[in-house]
Amino acid sequence: MDLSDATWTDVRDVDTDLAVVPVGSTEQHGPHAPLGTDVIGAEAVTDAAVDRTDREVVRAPAIPIGIAEEHRQFPGTMWVSEDTFRSYVREAVESLAHHGFERVVLVNGHGGNVDALREVGGNLTRSGAAYAVPFTWFEAVGEHSADMGHGGPLETALLRHVDPELIREDRIEAAQEGRADGWGEWTSHTNLAYDAAEFTDNGVVGDPGNGDERRGEELLELAADALVRLLETIVERDVSRPERR
Amino acid sequence: MDLSDATWTDVRDVDTDLAVVPVGSTEQHGPHAPLGTDVIGAEAVTDAAVDRTDREVVRAPAIPIGIAEEHRQFPGTMWVSEDTFRSYVREAVESLAHHGFERVVLVNGHGGNVDALREVGGNLTRSGAAYAVPFTWFEAVGEHSADMGHGGPLETALLRHVDPELIREDRIEAAQEGRADGWGEWTSHTNLAYDAAEFTDNGVVGDPGNGDERRGEELLELAADALVRLLETIVERDVSRPERR
Amino acid sequence: MDLSDATWTDVRDVDTDLAVVPVGSTEQHGPHAPLGTDVIGAEAVTDAAVDRTDREVVRAPAIPIGIAEEHRQFPGTMWVSEDTFRSYVREAVESLAHHGFERVVLVNGHGGNVDALREVGGNLTRSGAAYAVPFTWFEAVGEHSADMGHGGPLETALLRHVDPELIREDRIEAAQEGRADGWGEWTSHTNLAYDAAEFTDNGVVGDPGNGDERRGEELLELAADALVRLLETIVERDVSRPERR
Amino acid sequence: MDLSDATWTDVRDVDTDLAVVPVGSTEQHGPHAPLGTDVIGAEAVTDAAVDRTDREVVRAPAIPIGIAEEHRQFPGTMWVSEDTFRSYVREAVESLAHHGFERVVLVNGHGGNVDALREVGGNLTRSGAAYAVPFTWFEAVGEHSADMGHGGPLETALLRHVDPELIREDRIEAAQEGRADGWGEWTSHTNLAYDAAEFTDNGVVGDPGNGDERRGEELLELAADALVRLLETIVERDVSRPERR
Amino acid sequence: MDLSDATWTDVRDVDTDLAVVPVGSTEQHGPHAPLGTDVIGAEAVTDAAVDRTDREVVRAPAIPIGIAEEHRQFPGTMWVSEDTFRSYVREAVESLAHHGFERVVLVNGHGGNVDALREVGGNLTRSGAAYAVPFTWFEAVGEHSADMGHGGPLETALLRHVDPELIREDRIEAAQEGRADGWGEWTSHTNLAYDAAEFTDNGVVGDPGNGDERRGEELLELAADALVRLLETIVERDVSRPERR
Amino acid sequence: MDLSDATWTDVRDVDTDLAVVPVGSTEQHGPHAPLGTDVIGAEAVTDAAVDRTDREVVRAPAIPIGIAEEHRQFPGTMWVSEDTFRSYVREAVESLAHHGFERVVLVNGHGGNVDALREVGGNLTRSGAAYAVPFTWFEAVGEHSADMGHGGPLETALLRHVDPELIREDRIEAAQEGRADGWGEWTSHTNLAYDAAEFTDNGVVGDPGNGDERRGEELLELAADALVRLLETIVERDVSRPERR
Repeated sequence: MDLSDATWTDVRDVDTDLAVVPVGSTEQHGPHAPLGTDVIGAEAVTDAAVDRTDREVVRAPAIPIGIAEEHRQFPGTMWVSEDTFRSYVREAVESLAHHGFERVVLVNGHGGNVDALREVGGNLTRSGAAYAVPFTWFEAVGEHSADMGHGGPLETALLRHVDPELIREDRIEAAQEGRADGWGEWTSHTNLAYDAAEFTDNGVVGDPGNGDERRGEELLELAADALVRLLETIVERDVSRPERR
Repeated sequence: MDLSDATWTDVRDVDTDLAVVPVGSTEQHGPHAPLGTDVIGAEAVTDAAVDRTDREVVRAPAIPIGIAEEHRQFPGTMWVSEDTFRSYVREAVESLAHHGFERVVLVNGHGGNVDALREVGGNLTRSGAAYAVPFTWFEAVGEHSADMGHGGPLETALLRHVDPELIREDRIEAAQEGRADGWGEWTSHTNLAYDAAEFTDNGVVGDPGNGDERRGEELLELAADALVRLLETIVERDVSRPERR
Repeated sequence: MDLSDATWTDVRDVDTDLAVVPVGSTEQHGPHAPLGTDVIGAEAVTDAAVDRTDREVVRAPAIPIGIAEEHRQFPGTMWVSEDTFRSYVREAVESLAHHGFERVVLVNGHGGNVDALREVGGNLTRSGAAYAVPFTWFEAVGEHSADMGHGGPLETALLRHVDPELIREDRIEAAQEGRADGWGEWTSHTNLAYDAAEFTDNGVVGDPGNGDERRGEELLELAADALVRLLETIVERDVSRPERR
Repeated sequence: MDLSDATWTDVRDVDTDLAVVPVGSTEQHGPHAPLGTDVIGAEAVTDAAVDRTDREVVRAPAIPIGIAEEHRQFPGTMWVSEDTFRSYVREAVESLAHHGFERVVLVNGHGGNVDALREVGGNLTRSGAAYAVPFTWFEAVGEHSADMGHGGPLETALLRHVDPELIREDRIEAAQEGRADGWGEWTSHTNLAYDAAEFTDNGVVGDPGNGDERRGEELLELAADALVRLLETIVERDVSRPERR
Repeated sequence: MDLSDATWTDVRDVDTDLAVVPVGSTEQHGPHAPLGTDVIGAEAVTDAAVDRTDREVVRAPAIPIGIAEEHRQFPGTMWVSEDTFRSYVREAVESLAHHGFERVVLVNGHGGNVDALREVGGNLTRSGAAYAVPFTWFEAVGEHSADMGHGGPLETALLRHVDPELIREDRIEAAQEGRADGWGEWTSHTNLAYDAAEFTDNGVVGDPGNGDERRGEELLELAADALVRLLETIVERDVSRPERR
Repeated sequence: MDLSDATWTDVRDVDTDLAVVPVGSTEQHGPHAPLGTDVIGAEAVTDAAVDRTDREVVRAPAIPIGIAEEHRQFPGTMWVSEDTFRSYVREAVESLAHHGFERVVLVNGHGGNVDALREVGGNLTRSGAAYAVPFTWFEAVGEHSADMGHGGPLETALLRHVDPELIREDRIEAAQEGRADGWGEWTSHTNLAYDAAEFTDNGVVGDPGNGDERRGEELLELAADALVRLLETIVERDVSRPERR
């Protein structure tokens, strides 16, 4: 059930404690992919999973602005501070839990949100407000996950499948030329860079040429299946906190 | 320019300091109108105005969850605290201003957000971070504004025009039966109620029967024209702060 | 019972759950009216109402500094941030509620405090700490309310009645010359101004010549009567929160 | 110059950078002394000093509610949290400094405020916002200071001089009977008590019989003289911060 | 039981509700004494007391960085804000109380921490989270306490006894030459100074020549004995909060 | 240079902008390893690296209490909230930067601190206060890193080398029996567990039998060498922020 389209009487009549909240970011994804890439990805995976599962799941509107100051050198990137993002997500989930939707998956499309969502999930869960876990789609696509960059093969492929007009095919070559091969600058397993502009000229990491529409279709299937499995597992899980030892 | 669809290079090449941020709420709007009503309204007005103006305007993604705890007795209503909402909006605007979009209209579709947006606009403006003002569409539709309720004639009309399938026509009668005529419970010009459920049985205020599609079309035109005038005025305005007296 | 003058044993022996807290501001009111105008007004109305009602009411000391940064260009104006003001008022009310004074009217004399007091009242009420509502005296004086400005006819009249020496009669003409006719600068129902100095030269809005002592007397009566009605209504009101729908 | 009574044009024309802010508390002072004792004391000392000095001094309105949770077992006691109190005082002083009143004495009448005011003064001073120091009147009355209790000889004497009707002479005996001799319960130079009710039955510490009106007059003179000396010293002091060593 | 060296199974098997937390500061102590002086002192007194008492006491790790901005002109001084320090100590104690160690002494070695620790203790105690009191060793060494300075006779003596290599004996003369005799600059019982560098050239207050190793031994004995008495008293104390009057 | 042992004059005379701050946690590490394991590890690696490098490095005291609520079911575990931990570390680093030590490595011994330290480093770096990066020793020991558990082979080995008495050899068998093989409970690449007690009976993850003293020696060497390389890299790195694109 899509919360935005439903009425409160529809929600009243639904029988589930399961909800999903897509979480994205509005930030640069190279010269060829839109600033909304991470929102689009999170929503696409969410909707595909909700379609596939037999479970009743309440689907909240997507949170469109996340933790993305690392892209601030690239025009159009929006962000909020980590504290504000955590509060916004936590309180949004608490309002869902207020209505009994107490098992929540935060379906995430942006690497910069990962740590914050895990922290939010832990605090919600330990306080007893809700049981909430983040699911980041590109971590759950099998061997493809190793190819994750930024505006790279995975995200470009997914968009080519989901909303192909948003990929500027005539700029793929430019995207490839200014790209970095990997995320960050590493010494002794420490990333020395804090801003993407320290290691990528045009904001791209990974080769967007390696992600055609069929790969996008496969990614969406893999991610949606993984999310369905997660929902199935969560709905059965004992989420009470362990006893003192 | 829709920020979500644009690339950072598109944004880099745009020549304007004007931006609009639709701000809504996901909350009950009676048995006949969707929880997303306020987001849909804010986006519809924003997009109509951006279409009509000759000015280049950057259009941010809509903020979907606002200040709506007053509707918490109605299932599906989402909300965040006033503090968190203010921080989220303020920092989102600051990130726009970081890229030079320093004149910002917060296009609002929810009464509960009004005070907070005014506070955010004042703090952004006085601090010098950006010049930002809230525009609440249903306050700017001439004599219609006097009819504003909640899930009432104006919002129902607007949705009938913008996305008619979202209005459950078969529940209009029920919506009318459980509605309140006015917002709040007043004594000595003081509203004694804090929760909508104190004065409306089904969340509706005003008669949704009084808002057909043609009224919705007129509302959209009036609101969009008002927003265009506001943008025109703001772009010319001297927004520097006054001198000490 | 005036809390400042009472002893704790006096307070222990009182039998009521009703309290009033005057809330003002120390800010410019033109060349003719004192910075303390809003405190004086809030206290005068509070005391007149406490005198008139048969109910036992605990009267707290006035909070003298409010939300007034919009007047910062005028020397002597004091203010605190919205967050700090809200915390100060909320916690002060919580301390009253700790002693059983759980129905509280915040008697307000300053327009800039209105939104914040409503927010505080809502949070106190929803959390169950206390039932608290703001009452802003100049909104409750019948048709006079339409004349409200700033250092204008209403406030000047009230002070002429309450403490006439504080009005500098020899500066009324100067006050009239530099005044604005209305509050703010409006386009499309949006106030573009955030600082009073954007639209008034000397801080005055409205004509202080239109407020003689007799009008002040009438204003005080009207406001005090309205407040008495509010107290009577509140004391009988069921302030428990509504059930989930 | 009393800020509350002055107009902004009066304040504009004053030539000083010196301000005083009385700070009190509304809290129990035994069965014989009013809850407002600490505000009355702070204001009396402030006004006596302003009268005696030749310096132009801006006198802010008194802050009436302080840090007094330690008296919460006694009805009528009001308080705010330490954090809120510090913010309220700090921001109030910052608003004075905004107009050039950058040397500020916080004239304090309540022991529970002492630590917080010192912290606020330090933060204001180190940040460069203002130079501010707390002055607690009963610490500056020579050998009398050793007699300071709570609702005891000093405060009772001061009120007998300043506003004798507020002392309930017919309850002095009761006040004496339930009093404690000293503040706190001490072991190894550590006060084990956090609430006054742990060591005083009726909230009184020290013998209010030992404070007649003449002692009150002397206390006021001593405190006012001390405050005048402090103002004289501050106005000449180099308040710039020291160099790095 | 030293918590850092114990295993969780050891802690599980201990039968006490008593804990001690050494709290220090890393800050200048003149040219002759180390920046760690306050941590070393707090730990030495803590360990001596734990050794002497028959009670089982859980000994937490020392908190090494405190409130010391007043020494910021002297290189190497570390500090955090008062708010952060209070939160860190409070939450650390709450975690001890979570395991049943609900009577806690904060053994303090730094004057700048005193007010904050008292505030933390009060908030923990009133909220019911734990009963916690600060103990500052140099306030509890009898007549020696009058000699307390900064890097002066007491601290220098204690270190000469506890860890003599840390005192640079060849710089004692220099320490004496640049020292101040007393802490602060006082007018009307108000300290006008906020930074130590306002009144001491080299950071020293008091004569470090007056503190030999034997005095240090005596100080440690006195402080440890006082702390043992405090622990004995606390373990027997009724720490429930008083009834409403 | 160890800051705790140095005097401020020593620090003044040092010529470097490089500092290291060991960061640990006081938390359960199974029945065989001490609660202080993470502090000991962080300090050992820090000190070994400082010994090995030719660079002058300022070594701050270790921060002993971190983010460890996930171990709260095991007695003795201490923790603070994520917010408080971040503030404490950030402000401590800012105080170092105040003295010119503006390139800082946070040498971390606890997995639960990793995300928070990265966030703190980013905020310090982007604000310009300091350039700070976290280094977590067990991520930088080559192929050994894959064996990292909790109280498992790596930490047990390191302690056997660094402070062998702290490992209870007679409890290794018990540690092995109650241990988990891996950290967390995973579905679709999402860890469903928030508390360690959800997946380990005795708090151990990994086999502590696989970590003898020689392995500990090698780990210390590998980690120290990695940290030295990091320090060398950082000291040469251009840490200015990139230009706007």
